[in-house]
Amino acid sequence: MAASPSGECATLLVCCPDRRGIVATLAQVLYGHGVNILDADQHTDPAAQVFFQRIRFDMGELHTDTTALEGAIADLATRMDMRWRISYPDRAQRVALFVSRTDHCLYDLLLRRRSGELECEIPLIVGNHPDLEQVAGQFGIPFHVFPITAKTKSAQEARELELLADQEIDLVVLARYMQILSGEFIERFGRPIINIHHSFLPAFQGGRPYHQANERGVKLVGATAHYATVDLDEGPIIEQDVIRCSHRDGIGDLVRKGRDLERAVLSRAVRWHLEDRVLVYGNKTVVFA
Amino acid sequence: MAASPSGECATLLVCCPDRRGIVATLAQVLYGHGVNILDADQHTDPAAQVFFQRIRFDMGELHTDTTALEGAIADLATRMDMRWRISYPDRAQRVALFVSRTDHCLYDLLLRRRSGELECEIPLIVGNHPDLEQVAGQFGIPFHVFPITAKTKSAQEARELELLADQEIDLVVLARYMQILSGEFIERFGRPIINIHHSFLPAFQGGRPYHQANERGVKLVGATAHYATVDLDEGPIIEQDVIRCSHRDGIGDLVRKGRDLERAVLSRAVRWHLEDRVLVYGNKTVVFA
Amino acid sequence: MAASPSGECATLLVCCPDRRGIVATLAQVLYGHGVNILDADQHTDPAAQVFFQRIRFDMGELHTDTTALEGAIADLATRMDMRWRISYPDRAQRVALFVSRTDHCLYDLLLRRRSGELECEIPLIVGNHPDLEQVAGQFGIPFHVFPITAKTKSAQEARELELLADQEIDLVVLARYMQILSGEFIERFGRPIINIHHSFLPAFQGGRPYHQANERGVKLVGATAHYATVDLDEGPIIEQDVIRCSHRDGIGDLVRKGRDLERAVLSRAVRWHLEDRVLVYGNKTVVFA
Amino acid sequence: MAASPSGECATLLVCCPDRRGIVATLAQVLYGHGVNILDADQHTDPAAQVFFQRIRFDMGELHTDTTALEGAIADLATRMDMRWRISYPDRAQRVALFVSRTDHCLYDLLLRRRSGELECEIPLIVGNHPDLEQVAGQFGIPFHVFPITAKTKSAQEARELELLADQEIDLVVLARYMQILSGEFIERFGRPIINIHHSFLPAFQGGRPYHQANERGVKLVGATAHYATVDLDEGPIIEQDVIRCSHRDGIGDLVRKGRDLERAVLSRAVRWHLEDRVLVYGNKTVVFA
Repeated sequence: MAASPSGECATLLVCCPDRRGIVATLAQVLYGHGVNILDADQHTDPAAQVFFQRIRFDMGELHTDTTALEGAIADLATRMDMRWRISYPDRAQRVALFVSRTDHCLYDLLLRRRSGELECEIPLIVGNHPDLEQVAGQFGIPFHVFPITAKTKSAQEARELELLADQEIDLVVLARYMQILSGEFIERFGRPIINIHHSFLPAFQGGRPYHQANERGVKLVGATAHYATVDLDEGPIIEQDVIRCSHRDGIGDLVRKGRDLERAVLSRAVRWHLEDRVLVYGNKTVVFA
Repeated sequence: MAASPSGECATLLVCCPDRRGIVATLAQVLYGHGVNILDADQHTDPAAQVFFQRIRFDMGELHTDTTALEGAIADLATRMDMRWRISYPDRAQRVALFVSRTDHCLYDLLLRRRSGELECEIPLIVGNHPDLEQVAGQFGIPFHVFPITAKTKSAQEARELELLADQEIDLVVLARYMQILSGEFIERFGRPIINIHHSFLPAFQGGRPYHQANERGVKLVGATAHYATVDLDEGPIIEQDVIRCSHRDGIGDLVRKGRDLERAVLSRAVRWHLEDRVLVYGNKTVVFA
Repeated sequence: MAASPSGECATLLVCCPDRRGIVATLAQVLYGHGVNILDADQHTDPAAQVFFQRIRFDMGELHTDTTALEGAIADLATRMDMRWRISYPDRAQRVALFVSRTDHCLYDLLLRRRSGELECEIPLIVGNHPDLEQVAGQFGIPFHVFPITAKTKSAQEARELELLADQEIDLVVLARYMQILSGEFIERFGRPIINIHHSFLPAFQGGRPYHQANERGVKLVGATAHYATVDLDEGPIIEQDVIRCSHRDGIGDLVRKGRDLERAVLSRAVRWHLEDRVLVYGNKTVVFA
Repeated sequence: MAASPSGECATLLVCCPDRRGIVATLAQVLYGHGVNILDADQHTDPAAQVFFQRIRFDMGELHTDTTALEGAIADLATRMDMRWRISYPDRAQRVALFVSRTDHCLYDLLLRRRSGELECEIPLIVGNHPDLEQVAGQFGIPFHVFPITAKTKSAQEARELELLADQEIDLVVLARYMQILSGEFIERFGRPIINIHHSFLPAFQGGRPYHQANERGVKLVGATAHYATVDLDEGPIIEQDVIRCSHRDGIGDLVRKGRDLERAVLSRAVRWHLEDRVLVYGNKTVVFA
């Protein structure tokens, strides 16, 4: 991927009704502020007549400043009925991980962040069980336990929301969090939540996909990373993958194979989200991977 | 794969309740007739407590004859409550292909047979449309058109069954045959029927899986080869595979990608069936691939 | 992929030293002629400081004409030291297939063309053996036999070049043509030649890759489609893929698995080339797939 | 995979010149001691005329004892010129990990062991740098630093060998140990050493495979797990895999993609080795995966 000469890359994501000249107009606006486009990826959905673009550009040669640049983009956006989002390199997203008892996705995300593969801050980990507190400790991250029962769920979720607001969390990642978030939680949080489901959705929805897969005798098992919505297992899919299985694989083998798959799929989805590569429209995603 | 010294390999498939000593007993019986085991693949389902084995052996050194050998196996089968099937190299299976209008699976199977990859005879092709008659002609195979309407279905299927019986067909392959066989047809034929479904079952059952996949925004599309049963799209799965897709892929692209997938998955399933690698139990398969 | 509203899509490929404002400048030039950009894919090689772009645009709304448009692009190209190529929908590329005795790649390309997957004309097939004349005949394509010996090679290649010139061939595809083209042929033809090599290059160069793979005990076998250059097996790679193998696979099995791989890899490379998705620089390719 | 009724599974691996009746004879010997065969996987190399078998059996119903059983197998082995190895469930292999500075393979192996996926003991980790001491500490495993220079290499390797002998190490795993072991070390250790090489061997041997891959412009990068021999990068291959790359991937991206590949390939090779699924013959492996 092209590196910025100055190392100061910003990313602009836009989405609007398709019309003639969008690419030229947008490029012209940016160029007028001295912006050098390093990478531009673009897509038009011919059925929905929607235009999508991701532009990575070098901040180092900006003639004006970010306020002026954003003002110009906002003007254009009004004229073109455009949704847009801009990210600067000096503001890493703040991510909260939600976990239960299994550690493979948690370790995977923490190690990828440490190796520089995931550019984000992880100021807190939430568990509905205390089991993984030690893992959080190894990485020096505060761990918060919120045990959930049918009775306490509403109150606990309220406390979680407070914590997320307090910590200015941009993204929640459900790293095998074996607890269903209420629709109210999802709506009130109002920011993206990425979940990993251990099947190739829409096959095998619900809580025991490996058992269902084993029963049906499928020859591949899958995993799906998607944005959590109020409709469980129905949110926009970001990434999926599968692994081959056979009659020799019992439930235990599927679980083992699934661990590798889940962490691979989840980490790709999180990385793409953090790098502003994902645009949601309708119940689908455009992923500029 | 091990070649027979004499080139005369037979294959024995067995399936029975698991018990101690099966492997030794069976090996001993075969050895007693001079049979040299070339390959033996074996599986025990620990949940169902069922034993499966596939044995390929050299006929060239048989002391006795096939009648004596089969008698000995039959005796053992009675004692062990064993289902079994034996295939000899001098009797190729006779396969009927059912097609509609798309030719990719048909060409694929015919070319694989010509190259020696599929060891079988294909004495006839059945179409519910005349479109692919010319392809059949290129390979010198009789083509039979049975147009089907709601009204004629029952009568036409009866004629098809007669033809299959007349031609001593062992296996029907639905090579994108866009017509649902009646339960009566399946039962009366009484032999295996392999179908290719253009999705990763159990996701996207029914007639328009690529449209469903596109609508759901999945990141992989699949294909599934399975034995046809009276429950549509619910039969035992023999083989599945997937291919990556993205927001750039419209229905047309999914159809194009799917063609490659369908022919790959179907041909593997057919080859494994012809090589006696597939055992059905319950609604699942053991595939000694 | 975005369809043109009018169905009249042209493709522009450019490549030049990287500099600020290229995207905007190019977009502006096109927009000035009424061109509506449908898809734009772009890449900058940060090490080589080279800029690459592929633009697909709608011809239907062109204000001027193709002469004026090409003039404007040519002017820009001079200023920017740009290589460029433009393709119009009403001029399909003319492709010659070179074959020997094996038919799997030949059938595959012919069937993909017939299904509309490969948009090109195939006015002739060249064989160094007569074996596949009948296949050519089934698709109504003239077949030319040029038997090659060490003695006749030079003269035969001269006749082939004459035929290619006469037929205005844009692209030669070596579809398992088991004969090495001379450097002189490649230079005098002067247009792209795509070859399929049956290994994962740079591993196993030369004539017997499956034997080498078997001897080394690798766990995957591969295939590589590349542009033919005077350095055998060293040309720019367009596409590669692999398939899993095991100790059970003898040479015959590798050949069988390889057939599927070769045709898949070759057909992708040819399709991408025909759709103007491939740019060569140095000994590498940029593929806007 | 079939579970033992008693949970006490032993594994027997054998390898000998192929001859008639081996399967029956071996099964009979085991059956005579009350052994119930749970899984038997077998292979004959037709070119080399070598027979391989892996038998997993239930210890719980053994009539005699392991001494008698091994005696019987040893007798048979003498008659049949057979190499053999038997493993019991109560004796886990003792594994030493060798590391340098990168932690992805180390973490991966430690986590898989903790999750029960790798059944072994890891009594020590050796580093030629102290960097990963803390990781070892998190898992409570002693860490030994042996800095190596050209001058100290011989003495340091002698000390390492002493440590390995002292700790009764069965297997050394080079988990991205960026140091070449001397031929003398390999010979004197005399037990298996598994290495992970970050390319698809035999392509890109040597120390900078990602740079070589980037330079050649390949479309896939690979990783290879193999037994270390005195011929660097030439030992018997246990497992390989690849991942797709493109012109967009710089060296940094290849390194990132490679990390996932390396840990996946290495952990599969180690698991198969620990489960006695790998037999070496010549410079190749039979892997009963």
